[in-house]
Amino acid sequence: MRLALAQVDPVVGDLDGNRALILQRIREAREAGADLVVLPELVVTGYPPEDLLLRPGFVRAARECVEAIAREVTGIVALVGAPLLDEGELYNACAICADGAVTGWAKKRHLPNYGVFDEKRYFASGTELALVDVAGSTVGVTICEDMWIPGPPTTELAAAGAELVVNLSASPFHIGRAQEREAIFSARARESGVRVALCNAVGGQDELVFDGHSLVIAKDGTVLARAPGFEEVLLVVDLEQPETMTLAPLEDDLEEMRQALVLGLRDYVAKNGFGDVVVSVSGGIDSALTAALAVEALGADRVHCVSMPSRYSSHETREDARRLAENLGCDFRELAIEPVVEAATDVLASSFAGREPDLTEENLQARVRGTLLMALSNKFGWLVVTTGNKSELSVGYATLYGDMAGGFALLKDVFKTDVFRLAHHLNERAGRELIPQSTIDRPPTAELREGQLDEDSLPPYSELDRVLEAYVEDDRTLEELSADGFDPDVVERAVALIDRSEYKRRQAPPGVRLRPKAFGRDRRTPITNRWRS
Amino acid sequence: MRLALAQVDPVVGDLDGNRALILQRIREAREAGADLVVLPELVVTGYPPEDLLLRPGFVRAARECVEAIAREVTGIVALVGAPLLDEGELYNACAICADGAVTGWAKKRHLPNYGVFDEKRYFASGTELALVDVAGSTVGVTICEDMWIPGPPTTELAAAGAELVVNLSASPFHIGRAQEREAIFSARARESGVRVALCNAVGGQDELVFDGHSLVIAKDGTVLARAPGFEEVLLVVDLEQPETMTLAPLEDDLEEMRQALVLGLRDYVAKNGFGDVVVSVSGGIDSALTAALAVEALGADRVHCVSMPSRYSSHETREDARRLAENLGCDFRELAIEPVVEAATDVLASSFAGREPDLTEENLQARVRGTLLMALSNKFGWLVVTTGNKSELSVGYATLYGDMAGGFALLKDVFKTDVFRLAHHLNERAGRELIPQSTIDRPPTAELREGQLDEDSLPPYSELDRVLEAYVEDDRTLEELSADGFDPDVVERAVALIDRSEYKRRQAPPGVRLRPKAFGRDRRTPITNRWRS
Repeated sequence: MRLALAQVDPVVGDLDGNRALILQRIREAREAGADLVVLPELVVTGYPPEDLLLRPGFVRAARECVEAIAREVTGIVALVGAPLLDEGELYNACAICADGAVTGWAKKRHLPNYGVFDEKRYFASGTELALVDVAGSTVGVTICEDMWIPGPPTTELAAAGAELVVNLSASPFHIGRAQEREAIFSARARESGVRVALCNAVGGQDELVFDGHSLVIAKDGTVLARAPGFEEVLLVVDLEQPETMTLAPLEDDLEEMRQALVLGLRDYVAKNGFGDVVVSVSGGIDSALTAALAVEALGADRVHCVSMPSRYSSHETREDARRLAENLGCDFRELAIEPVVEAATDVLASSFAGREPDLTEENLQARVRGTLLMALSNKFGWLVVTTGNKSELSVGYATLYGDMAGGFALLKDVFKTDVFRLAHHLNERAGRELIPQSTIDRPPTAELREGQLDEDSLPPYSELDRVLEAYVEDDRTLEELSADGFDPDVVERAVALIDRSEYKRRQAPPGVRLRPKAFGRDRRTPITNRWRS
Repeated sequence: MRLALAQVDPVVGDLDGNRALILQRIREAREAGADLVVLPELVVTGYPPEDLLLRPGFVRAARECVEAIAREVTGIVALVGAPLLDEGELYNACAICADGAVTGWAKKRHLPNYGVFDEKRYFASGTELALVDVAGSTVGVTICEDMWIPGPPTTELAAAGAELVVNLSASPFHIGRAQEREAIFSARARESGVRVALCNAVGGQDELVFDGHSLVIAKDGTVLARAPGFEEVLLVVDLEQPETMTLAPLEDDLEEMRQALVLGLRDYVAKNGFGDVVVSVSGGIDSALTAALAVEALGADRVHCVSMPSRYSSHETREDARRLAENLGCDFRELAIEPVVEAATDVLASSFAGREPDLTEENLQARVRGTLLMALSNKFGWLVVTTGNKSELSVGYATLYGDMAGGFALLKDVFKTDVFRLAHHLNERAGRELIPQSTIDRPPTAELREGQLDEDSLPPYSELDRVLEAYVEDDRTLEELSADGFDPDVVERAVALIDRSEYKRRQAPPGVRLRPKAFGRDRRTPITNRWRS
């Protein structure tokens, strides 16, 4: 059997666009002589369509889209992920398309309702097995979570005679996920003694990035073929001819992060109809990395850098900001915030009489910057890409409506220690200095008051990031963290800061999810919450 | 049997505080001679605890809290809502406390996973019936959704001999919900021929408000007793003595909205540890209503009004802002934004050279106001209560980081037409002009350019609100709305605006949910979404 896996990047809600994309890949697969072409989970609607699935008109239109696709499927069998309304219940399903019609449906059995997933909000569970004959072979059809779980339906499909079990997925990326996924799907192949073929979606959808890495696996669990990550591809293989198999390499965690960030930003910009982006560059490493990644995603001519120095900005950071833009080949401008800060300070003077300067004056500078940046965004239609990292966002070391103001928070799920690693990585890949070395070497500072350093307010990032990982991602308690050997003072300060800044995170822009537990859909914490341990 | 319903307002995560609150009510019930005291669903943790339930340390601490409560329960049976970890599965459960110990558990069977609810994310479904003997009677125990659904467990509890079925609820308010709830619980009583007693939580938790309205219902479905809405109360009744029954009145929709808004704001402020709030008063009706409600929630001495006129503010609106603060008895100050807007305009002048004024200059004014307001918030610790209504937020007629900047968006779920109704209602209740009549009478204007009126940019609110209700809340399609008789032009403009402003709503502060489908957890729409009908 010749098998095609169409690892594509649909757009949520764009039924017409997705239909064209699907039909194009089906045609290519047929021209390549494939007997069977597999597309990702819910490829017709894009994944996750969220509450669009609760709109009867949307579900009807998706069904019409599937029928229109099926009418053009001849000379090949196509498996197309789509919602199915059947006897009043909605299913996460797969249309089996052949001979110009939908000849059957497979329904997802195991519905994930954890982490970023809410599938029990929308779908009923399928119960029947879905088998289809293709070129004399029996093929079992499953959808994503169905093969993450040992036992049925995979074992039942094998028992019912399936020699190949295919899986339509929209399985989001996090660091190390491709390796986990391979281990799981290999285990399913071995347990049931069947070949497995996985077609995963690719592309960015709000905070999620789907990484592709579609797979063909032998009965003994050996990975025979692997599609590349983070790009669209049609992988065509002859199951009986090993020489047709290709194994795209799995990258290390840094390169995976880079690719996910680039794809996540590129798709957010493209799918939401933006042209250019603007980044506030401070001379610091977060904004430098953000701008450099934006250039990789969009090209230098679509990235605008704005430096907004204040009285506390050093000559060195101002020069680094300018040099970064030169290194990247971006548009650059400098806007002095001082006159605006002074005007605001004057207006507030009588209200603030007799009060000492405090965080207020620091936040004011950040908010003046946010206001100027948004004015550029409004005037020129540029998307503001914010520059804060996960460490800062965790402990609330960021100003709402200031440096948090913008449409996409690219580094939202990148710890500060990984910001440094990524900066090195980008320079190394480029073979030259993109991010100035002086930016990498300078101790982190927000430059919102004289001589300020991040470590005046926060534990050192090397310690902080380990606490954040354990508390935010692994749900360790204060006591457990101390027992784990973390410095109790660091733990207590960090945890108090994390719990008290949930309200800020609620108003943060979306950003690329990179880790097993990102802020947002992954970690649903009340704002009003007195739990402190 | 003497029955006590402890309609209380716990705080999410505050196990110590909730324990004290629960024990206080149990003592009061015992002192009143009650045989049985019922507390709300998950009263130990507060509802909804969201992903706190995924932290093993939190679940352990909640269990210890239940055991500590039970040790003090003597001379009465207490039903206390709490999570239960049993053989590796977590349940939404009720601890049956008597004789100084937990003598049994009831487990929720029906887990809501729609609307604002995500219970299948956390809980397994109970399967066993829970019956407890109290003062010679058999009592069945159910939890919230268990009695919203006909059939089991209510019918099975009746068949097993229950004469009274109690229900522990944390059932959130929306307009008309109390009436719906009574109809549903009456139907359960009639279907099974049992008495029903419902103890509902009360209080605000982020966007949700629990309205109380606890109930005692006769076998024939007659409501015998009703606790008041929106306040804590211990309702004690003798089931055999009709004269002990009290029927608090159900209020009309306006008064319900007012009470929900007041309680929602008061609890958000108190539970998050704020003292005072600040409201930007423009002379318009939204900010006037917001300030008036804030005064009802917190008292005039904790509400600060700030007027921030620009060159486009009329003498009349400036005077109305001042008069509002006088009427309410609030602190008032005026900050002129012009110098700050001018300074920002100068800084941007070279970037904007050759460009015509557009929305940018309007948003700039709103953002300067937001920046000044946040400076007051930072300096004095005041919570900023924003003033936008649901109509504006639906169509994106609001400035991110401008008038949307703040901690709580009180009117987030109030349509503009209801803003007018509520303003009248507040004045009427007060028996005097709180909100100046000239504010109510003036055609709505954002005053961000010369002679601007909302209706230059938007359909008339009377039409717009009906379209919003049908599209946002009832999921009608464009075609259906036209078939329903709505003006197709209004519909098309409104729907395009709604779909394109999801990104703004994601960065909006929380506000009080009042309607069956509020923005937020109720309506989970992707930002990246090309569906347009």
